[in-house]
This record gives sequence, structure tokens and C-alpha cells, in this order.
Amino acid sequence: MSDFEIHTLGCGSARPSLRHQPSSTVVKHRGNLFMVDCGEGAQLGFMRQRLSFSRLRHIFLTHLHGDHVFGLPGLIGTLALNGSGGGVTIHTFADGERQLRAIFDYFCRDTPFEINFNVIKPEDAVILETKSLTVRTVKLKHRVPAVGFVFEEKIGERHINPSMCERYEVPKSWMRRLKGGEDYIMEDGTVIPNNILTFDPTPPKSYAHISDTVYLPALAEKIKGVDLLFHETTYLNQHLAMAAPRGHSTAAQAAMVARDAGAGRLLTGHYSSRYDDDSLFLKEASEIFPNVVLNREGLVTPIS
Amino acid sequence: MSDFEIHTLGCGSARPSLRHQPSSTVVKHRGNLFMVDCGEGAQLGFMRQRLSFSRLRHIFLTHLHGDHVFGLPGLIGTLALNGSGGGVTIHTFADGERQLRAIFDYFCRDTPFEINFNVIKPEDAVILETKSLTVRTVKLKHRVPAVGFVFEEKIGERHINPSMCERYEVPKSWMRRLKGGEDYIMEDGTVIPNNILTFDPTPPKSYAHISDTVYLPALAEKIKGVDLLFHETTYLNQHLAMAAPRGHSTAAQAAMVARDAGAGRLLTGHYSSRYDDDSLFLKEASEIFPNVVLNREGLVTPIS
Repeated sequence: MSDFEIHTLGCGSARPSLRHQPSSTVVKHRGNLFMVDCGEGAQLGFMRQRLSFSRLRHIFLTHLHGDHVFGLPGLIGTLALNGSGGGVTIHTFADGERQLRAIFDYFCRDTPFEINFNVIKPEDAVILETKSLTVRTVKLKHRVPAVGFVFEEKIGERHINPSMCERYEVPKSWMRRLKGGEDYIMEDGTVIPNNILTFDPTPPKSYAHISDTVYLPALAEKIKGVDLLFHETTYLNQHLAMAAPRGHSTAAQAAMVARDAGAGRLLTGHYSSRYDDDSLFLKEASEIFPNVVLNREGLVTPIS
Repeated sequence: MSDFEIHTLGCGSARPSLRHQPSSTVVKHRGNLFMVDCGEGAQLGFMRQRLSFSRLRHIFLTHLHGDHVFGLPGLIGTLALNGSGGGVTIHTFADGERQLRAIFDYFCRDTPFEINFNVIKPEDAVILETKSLTVRTVKLKHRVPAVGFVFEEKIGERHINPSMCERYEVPKSWMRRLKGGEDYIMEDGTVIPNNILTFDPTPPKSYAHISDTVYLPALAEKIKGVDLLFHETTYLNQHLAMAAPRGHSTAAQAAMVARDAGAGRLLTGHYSSRYDDDSLFLKEASEIFPNVVLNREGLVTPIS
């Protein structure tokens, strides 16, 4: 099991269908769960994937359209019923806090934990730092203010080389300092350089979640080298003329962003319900960028 | 196909599970759709049963708990996207209007039809008259104000007896008057009594939707002779002690109401997620009242 993976709960767009659920994605990192958007029914997808409500502490909203938000009151109600202990933080615009607080104040009065809000703005900014992750926003362009979220692992500790540590008889009490990069100083004063006793840290990985937005060529520079890029692919090229006026992108445009960003892989989604055959999104994007993952509800995409 | 039938979209209670959806029921009467409660995901159940959004004009809310309401913003959004022409009326308490208007005003700004509210009170009253149906509330007892809804067909027109009309050579222009109960007066003044030329109207049918409530023995009198009674069966008798404090009923209590009301059949539902085997609700209720229908998502129950 990867310790950084993306669970797709819903990858449809606003008009619901029997094939796709509205937007919701869970980022799982070292057992912690971060939800991006929470369309109606997200909590069901959450349960179907056997994710644990008690590990969910942060919910990020890209923008305030119903298909990205309407699952939130029910999810909060469920967290309350499950006695989820530690509280939850919702990262959203000021308007989102106002609207959601009004709903929670009336319908979720008995919630036994804190519902915190971190008010974010439609701009590029770091909005959360945890021990092992940085989350930042990138400004998008949609019919209402919108941001994408970039999850970047921090550079981890160096890994101990057990056989070398054994050879130099490094005591256990030194391990933490070695992981931090210190050289080992033997009792007789001999210095053993850290890089003899340790391996480099695992290269940090990153995930960018870009939805909903028109095609923004300048975005590529801001997510340069991202390992996995979710970029909305609401339309196919045959409906290119609709995309920008409605604040959306085509599969080909998403692929151009992935290509220009030098992304590892591109994950599709936010499919318009007008199409019956999802494989067309894969086909169109793959002609521009080779490493495309065709999204669907229930898909788990490891970031490797 | 019956012209009066009940579609179950969700028959679970507040804590969601992978087995049951939160509360929502559609009453279909002569092609018109009336929704009672709208838990999260109701619109999906609606689509799964291939019901037509354009036939939905009335939504009734029993009370203002999230598991009966949280599907409503998404449903309104979908009606808007589908360009549902004729508007919709939501029958709810004053608090419901206030809360829902706030949500709709922000999240459903582009709705191309009127969202009307009919403010009801937690009391016994007729709240809607259509050409062929009367809908009335009955006061229930729950942790918050709550009502049940009783749908009663009006007595229809008399049915023409074609062979007798032919024998007396009744002209077509008289048919409407015969259906209304008039005697036929021949050109020579002879009176043919109406009951020779017509059959009695179809006996009117009725449906009562009772959820959420503690066991109310006095309710039976108010729904006397109802053809189909949905009465919540949140608990089994083994958890009787929990039922009243939490504002709910057991399967046995629902059956006592059905028996005392002389109901035609009892439809179960609003199952607590603590039980894995729904058939226990059927078993417990059937020991008191024989005609029990075990509810489940997707069930269509004709009222005959």
C-alpha cells in the first residue's frame, strides 16, 4: 500500500447521472485523510472505499458550487454520529464559511467536536503545513472564485544504513541525530560522515488538484514537476467552444497543462454527463500527453 | 401500472450505511409525483427508478433533521439544470423556509423556475387540495416539531356503463352529466335513473406517511381505514427503551398503529443501522398485524 494515494469518490460534473457522482476526492497521506470537495453522496463513496471517518481532519473546497459542496452537511452529521473526536477544519473562502456555518448552526447543532474554518483566498498561497505535507492554493479561473490545491511532501528524514551503523558500532541513541543529517563522532573523536551511515531521504512526491477551471497555460509553471496532476476534463475537443464560456477545460487542454508542467501522470475527471464513453477522454488526452489515468469512482491512484 | 403507488428512495435512518439511504419517498398519483422528505442522495434514487423530474411539483418535509432534508439543495440544482418548467412547492415549517431559502439564494441563484414555500405547522390540517387528492398533516411527536402526511384520493366520477347507454341511446353530449351523477331525461320526458346508466366510482384510496415519531396510540383514529400506512420502524422491541427518548417507534408499535387504524397494509422503514437483518422488522410487526410490506430502496408499492 502506497503511503500517498488518491481516492476518487466522485468524478462527474454538475448534472448528476447514474454513471458518475459529483466531485469528491480523498488524498491519503501516511494514514491521514484530506478531502478535496464534497459533492452530494461523498460520504457513501468514503464508506465504499472503507476509509476511516476518524482519520479525516481537513476538507478543502475548490469553489462554492453545489456539486462540490452539497455532501458536506451530511458528512458533518455522520462525523458527529460517529463521535469523531478531534474536530475538522474546512478550508474555504469567506463566503463558504458564512454559508456553511449557517447550515451547521441549524442542522448540526449537536456536533460533539469543533468545526473549524481556515478562510482562504482565490490566490496563490501556502494554506496548511503539517509535519510531512505542505498544501498550497493556486488561483484558477471559473465562473466563481476558484482555487486548485497542491499537496507537496516535505523532504523526509535520511534513512539509516543498518549494516554500516553496525560496522561502526553506532549506539541506538544516535539514530535520531543520524536521520537528521549529523555526522557520527566516535568516542575517540573520529568523525564518520553522515552519508556513510545513511541513505538519502525518499524523494518527496506531489499531487495537484485542479478543478474547475478554464485552460490556463500559465498554470504549468506553478505546478512544475508534479508527480500526479488531477486536471478537470469536463469536455472533449468537439465542444471546445463551450469550455471557456462555462469555465471549464477539455481533455486536450488538461493534457497540455500536464505536458507543459512535466507532470508524472495526468488523472482525468469532472466529466460532463453528455458523454457516454469515458474512454474518449483518455484517447484525446493521450494524443498530447502519454501518461494518462482514466478516472472513475472507486479508483485508487498511488503516487509513485 | 397502478395509478397510485409509493416509490421508496431511502428507508434508512440518520446514520448512513452501505445498505440503506436516508429518508425519501415518492408518492405517484395519476402520473404526478409528490416527494416526502429528501435525504442526501434522493435524486439518485429518483433517477434509478426512472421517475421524471418534470412531474415533480410538491415536496413535503416531515421535520427538519438533516437525514430528511440534505438531498434537497442538490435536487433543486438538478431540476434547474434540467430546465424543469413549472416550479416546485416545498411544504415545510417556517424554520424550513428560512433555512432552505438561505441555501437556495446562495447556491441555486440561477434556478429558472419559482421555488415556492407553503408554510405548514405541526398540527392536524389540510395543506393541499388538487383536483384528485387531498393532503393533510397529522401532528407527530419527535425530538423536533414533526408531522405525518396523509394523501387521500377524492371520490372520482361515476363510470359509464356503455351497454346500458347504448340501449337507451344516450347521446355522447350527455356523458359528462352522467359521470357527474345526473339522471338522463329522454326526449319524451322519460327519466332513466343515473345508477342504471353508470357504475359507482372507484373507491378512493389513501396513503399515510408517518415518520419520525414516538408511538402515538391516538394516531390510529386519525388515519382510520387508510389503505397503506408507512410508519417508521426505527427499532426492534429489544431496544424499546431507546425508542421513546429518541423520538422513534419500534416495529411492534408501528404494527399496533396499523392494527388499531384498520389499515390495509403496513410499510416498514427508517431502519436503525444497528441491525443487519431487515427481516426482523417484518417478523416483529407481523406478529401483531398480518399485512406487512418490508421496505427497501427501489421498492414500488401499489395502493390497491
